[in-house]
Amino acid sequence: MTASDTGQSAAATLGVVGGGQLGRMLAEAAAPLGVEMVVLDPTPRCPASTVARDQVVAEFDDIDGVRELAERVDALTLEIELAGPDALRAAADAAGVPVHPDPGTLGLVRDKLVQKRRLREAGVPVPEFRRVDDEDDLRAALDELGTPAMLKARTGGYDGRGNVPVESRAAASEALATVGGPATVEEYVDFDRELSVMTVRSAAGVHTFDPAENVHREEILRESVVPARTTLEARERADTVARETLAALDGRGAFGVELFEVDDRILVNEVAPRPHNSGHWTIEGARVSQFEAHARAVLGWPLPTGATERRGSTATANLLGAVETERPVAPVVGGDAVAPEADGTTVDLRPALDSPASLHWYGKRRLRPLRKMGHVTATGDDPLATARRVRDELGFR
Amino acid sequence: MTASDTGQSAAATLGVVGGGQLGRMLAEAAAPLGVEMVVLDPTPRCPASTVARDQVVAEFDDIDGVRELAERVDALTLEIELAGPDALRAAADAAGVPVHPDPGTLGLVRDKLVQKRRLREAGVPVPEFRRVDDEDDLRAALDELGTPAMLKARTGGYDGRGNVPVESRAAASEALATVGGPATVEEYVDFDRELSVMTVRSAAGVHTFDPAENVHREEILRESVVPARTTLEARERADTVARETLAALDGRGAFGVELFEVDDRILVNEVAPRPHNSGHWTIEGARVSQFEAHARAVLGWPLPTGATERRGSTATANLLGAVETERPVAPVVGGDAVAPEADGTTVDLRPALDSPASLHWYGKRRLRPLRKMGHVTATGDDPLATARRVRDELGFR
Repeated sequence: MTASDTGQSAAATLGVVGGGQLGRMLAEAAAPLGVEMVVLDPTPRCPASTVARDQVVAEFDDIDGVRELAERVDALTLEIELAGPDALRAAADAAGVPVHPDPGTLGLVRDKLVQKRRLREAGVPVPEFRRVDDEDDLRAALDELGTPAMLKARTGGYDGRGNVPVESRAAASEALATVGGPATVEEYVDFDRELSVMTVRSAAGVHTFDPAENVHREEILRESVVPARTTLEARERADTVARETLAALDGRGAFGVELFEVDDRILVNEVAPRPHNSGHWTIEGARVSQFEAHARAVLGWPLPTGATERRGSTATANLLGAVETERPVAPVVGGDAVAPEADGTTVDLRPALDSPASLHWYGKRRLRPLRKMGHVTATGDDPLATARRVRDELGFR
Repeated sequence: MTASDTGQSAAATLGVVGGGQLGRMLAEAAAPLGVEMVVLDPTPRCPASTVARDQVVAEFDDIDGVRELAERVDALTLEIELAGPDALRAAADAAGVPVHPDPGTLGLVRDKLVQKRRLREAGVPVPEFRRVDDEDDLRAALDELGTPAMLKARTGGYDGRGNVPVESRAAASEALATVGGPATVEEYVDFDRELSVMTVRSAAGVHTFDPAENVHREEILRESVVPARTTLEARERADTVARETLAALDGRGAFGVELFEVDDRILVNEVAPRPHNSGHWTIEGARVSQFEAHARAVLGWPLPTGATERRGSTATANLLGAVETERPVAPVVGGDAVAPEADGTTVDLRPALDSPASLHWYGKRRLRPLRKMGHVTATGDDPLATARRVRDELGFR
């Protein structure tokens, strides 16, 4: 590579498959390091595109698009699991650039059955699970695991989509029809709380952030609070289990490890091979954010000792679309006359800007039911109360 | 304004005249708020352009260019005083958008004689100064002010360019020839230390960050440390003088107020109506950075109580081009084979990335003598020692 004849000299250029809010916050974190980003996303002017240098408009698994992306960057990564492992591997090889997370790991993690098998083989504690290809499989599994149980589509699930609770043996048929394809069924875990550990593998080794305690409702993450309101032992065990999880997965980058705390056990619920919604607290709450850590790890750059240290108590609340049907949204701040489209709505962000919380607005144009539109992060005394209050004032519930 | 038919819905769009590192850091700070930026700069792919949504390529005072910029944004601002006050006012009026700093204030501040007069009239303590149009003026002033004295070009000076010390009456002619135009001459202030206060006027009032202590060499800012290593009285007086300075200047936005501490007095050296090099510590060191504060103020958005509070001890060291002549530069990180251009050089950023300091690399393609290429910020114990050590390891001195 020769420095080209422009006004810019990037320290590196990072190619990212997916241009949603995770890509946007990755670009925000990468810029101070002199790292430019090019994102690939099918939606023109996706949320990440205005902060990134450029966007390739293509489907996430479009081979030509991913190849074009790879040719323009120094390293490839992703912010959405819909990225195609084969397209990523082929494009990275053709362009001679590294790709992280490892496409093999991505392929493995994308299939919830294969993911759980890998973790169980590695001795990582996971809920009991069974493969389900048909109704007979499911009924047999329910006999063993009992009801209720959780039926999950093996691939394509996101934010609880593709997950169906099975309350009784009689409900097996309907649940399977809802999931509509190859599935896995898991024992119902009556957890005390949900935790997650953002974990990063850099060239030098594995780094972990403090465990977050996560509050879900309707299977969507509502709030995260750090430190998690549990025992020191549970937090330490969560860290250990997250490290065991990483040991079972190849490749560099950030991994969000979702955990159940139940009695004195920590079980892995799911792993996301990328920055994770429950790690947004690290932007204000840690020395280096999950996004900066991910960028450094993917590029093979160092992550110094203490980088993942927590700065103080932190809590994050998601701003979710509180609507029945999809519609355009125009954020307004103050009294400016902004006319939404005919079927649209406006959102006044001023209560967040006028609060001690930090606003993160993702710039999405359409509001959808429970869509993540932004988040707020509070630090200091009782940050969860502050984050919740600000979120409620914005009218996103 | 109607939300346009794209994938994006910005909370606001900010137009910025100038696309250097200040614009880049402004874009980095604006993005989490959902604020998009368009910059105007004559250099294609200027440092701010990759983080901003778009760039208008035009000279800073190009009337058509500034008009185009104004038409695409919700508010206008600048990051370089070469912006033309008349072009800004006309473009803002034509587009019906606010512009801050106020063009009148910009015009006033750009002329060092007019700036000093305004401050003196307002009762703000400043060094003694005299208008200098010719050699007779200068000799008469030197008779009153004594030597040495500091001769300054009234307009166009930057980073000490246009400033010439006059050691004796006999040197008057040569000094005037060097400055080469209308000037002001100021008494020589044998200061104990240089301080600066980043000051922000929002719609609600004036906010100040903690005073920084600044270390200059060859009239270029090398390091800033906060808290300033002086008495509480001096820090409080610096805050008071900065607030008095703002009271003499109209318009919203950030103002860098450079000060001399001499005995028990605080004198204003210069005012910059924009984010300032000596305020970079606020990115890591304050709840809200000078850049976020500037964006909010220009847009008329609130700046909540406590926003400018210092989080801890912080120090910043600039990464300056340590070269004799201009040349291309390619930053490299680690062992990748990067071939600089024939007459170029490479810079290994790894010592900064491997340190506890935060790296800010501006992405400039050409190294020039003493050009600001980036900065590092350290927090915690003895941050100045850390920042200096990291800077020295990078080889920028």
